[in-house]
Amino acid sequence: MKIVTTITDLRTELAKHRKSGKTIGCVPTMGALHEGHMALVKKSASQNDFTVVSIFVNPIQFGKNEDLDKYPRRLDADASLCAKNGAGLIFAPTMESMYSADHQTYVYNEPLQDLYCGQYRPGHFRGVLTVVAKLFLAMQPDSAYFGRKDYQQAFMIQKMVEDLNFPIKIVIIPISREKSGLARSSRNEFLSTSDRNNAACIYQGLCAAKEEYDEGEVSVEVLRTIVRGAIDHSGGKVQFVEIVSRKTLLPITGELTEKATILVAAFFGVTRLIDNIEL
Amino acid sequence: MKIVTTITDLRTELAKHRKSGKTIGCVPTMGALHEGHMALVKKSASQNDFTVVSIFVNPIQFGKNEDLDKYPRRLDADASLCAKNGAGLIFAPTMESMYSADHQTYVYNEPLQDLYCGQYRPGHFRGVLTVVAKLFLAMQPDSAYFGRKDYQQAFMIQKMVEDLNFPIKIVIIPISREKSGLARSSRNEFLSTSDRNNAACIYQGLCAAKEEYDEGEVSVEVLRTIVRGAIDHSGGKVQFVEIVSRKTLLPITGELTEKATILVAAFFGVTRLIDNIEL
Repeated sequence: MKIVTTITDLRTELAKHRKSGKTIGCVPTMGALHEGHMALVKKSASQNDFTVVSIFVNPIQFGKNEDLDKYPRRLDADASLCAKNGAGLIFAPTMESMYSADHQTYVYNEPLQDLYCGQYRPGHFRGVLTVVAKLFLAMQPDSAYFGRKDYQQAFMIQKMVEDLNFPIKIVIIPISREKSGLARSSRNEFLSTSDRNNAACIYQGLCAAKEEYDEGEVSVEVLRTIVRGAIDHSGGKVQFVEIVSRKTLLPITGELTEKATILVAAFFGVTRLIDNIEL
Repeated sequence: MKIVTTITDLRTELAKHRKSGKTIGCVPTMGALHEGHMALVKKSASQNDFTVVSIFVNPIQFGKNEDLDKYPRRLDADASLCAKNGAGLIFAPTMESMYSADHQTYVYNEPLQDLYCGQYRPGHFRGVLTVVAKLFLAMQPDSAYFGRKDYQQAFMIQKMVEDLNFPIKIVIIPISREKSGLARSSRNEFLSTSDRNNAACIYQGLCAAKEEYDEGEVSVEVLRTIVRGAIDHSGGKVQFVEIVSRKTLLPITGELTEKATILVAAFFGVTRLIDNIEL
C-alpha cells in the first residue's frame, strides 16, 4: 500500500488516475481503523475506480482537555486493512503539511457548530469542517464517504458541500455495530470490559425509544426519557439526548411532527461515546 | 458574449474547455466594470486559454447601512466590455443560485477579518471569503485575478487559498488609477465633481509618505500623519490610516523594521474610498 505524506505527492499520485479518466473516492479518517471504516472503504471501492484513504489525527478538532495525545495511532495496521478492502492509496499527512504556523482561515457552520456535540466540545466542528475542506481541496475526489455514527458531523459536511459548491458527492454509510449493538468507534478500545458490555445500553435505549415512536408516542420528552433511563440504568453518564429535525438538525421540542433523529452522547468511565437513531 | 446564470450551466460551459485541455482564468467582480477590472481581464486572457468573469453583487459582504441597494448594476455594458477585452464567458448568478434560504456555512479569517476595513464593516470579510470560496468551487479555475486596491481582501483571499489548499494560482494586479491619481473604483461615480478632484489627495498623501520613507523616515506615526494631513487638508474624512506588515498584515507600531504597506480609508461626501501603497 502506497503511503504519501505531503499534498504535493498526493496530487501527483491522484493526477495519474484522474488523467486516465478514473473516478476517485475518498474516505477521510483519523486512523485506528475498524470495521466501520472498512464499510466506507468497501463502498468507495465499489463505486469508484480508485479510492484514497486519508489518515490524520486533526489537532484543531480536539479541545484542550480531550484525548488528542492518547488517540490511538497505528499506521501500519491501518494501511494493511485498507489494502485488503480495496483502497489504492493512503494520505497520511504530517502536521506541518496540513497547518502552517500562521494558519488563519477556518470554516464555520454558524447555526449548528455550537449545538449538541459542539456545545460540549467548543471549536470541534470548526476543526472538522476546516480539515475536511482542506482534505477535499487536496484530494479533489468525485465522492467522499462518511459514517452515520457521527450524525451531526455528516450533516454539517453535507451542508458545507452544498453551501460552498464543492463538486463532490457525499455518501453516508449506516452505523457499523459490535455484536452487542454498541456503535463501532476507535474510542471503544478505551473501555473496560464491563463498560464495553454496559455501553450496549445506548443502542438498546435508542431502539426502545424508536419502538415507542413506531407505536405512536410523539412526545419528545417521553422519548428522551426512555434513552436517558436506559443509560442511567447501566451505569453510564448521559451528556445529552436530543431529538432533532432531519431537515435542519435544529432541536425539536414538544411533539414530533416531522422526520427526526435522536442524538445521544454518554460517558462510560472517562470515555465519551455517541450514537443516534433515525425515527 | 455568452452569459450563464446558474452553477450548473457554468459548469457545463467550462467543462467543454477543460476537457479539451484549456487553462481557465477567472475574474470575480461585482460588476460596474471599469478599466481596473479590464486590466484583470486582459491579464487573465493573456495567461489562460479561456477567461470567465463573474458578476455578482454579493449581499452578505454589505453591512445593513451600506450601499447594497444603490451599488451600480449594468450587466449589458459590463458584458460588452468583457468581450472586447478577451473574456469568453460571463457568470452572473441569481441570488437564489448562490445562497439557499438555509445557508449555514461561512469562511472566516480569524485574526484579520475584524481589522482595518473589517473593523468598520463588520461581517464584510466573512462575506467576501465565503463568496470567493463558492465562486472558486463553482468555476474551478487554474488562476484567479484580483486588484491590489482591495489590499486586505487580496491578502486574505491569497491566505484562504494557501490555508485551505485551493489548487488555484492567485494573481494580484497593480492599482489602476484615474489621471488624477485616484484609484479606480465602481464607487467613484458616486462622487461629486469636486469630491472626485479632491479625492486625488489620498494618493498624493500616500506618495508623500512613501517619499519620506524612502528618505529614511521610519516612524509609523510620522508617516500616518502625512497621509491623514493630506486628506484632512482636502476636505476628506479619514476613517483609518494603518501601516501593516506585508508578511502578516498585522499592524506595525513604533518604527518600521520590515516590509510594510500603508492602508487608508476615507470618506468624500458619503462615499467611502480605499487606497494603499507598498513602502
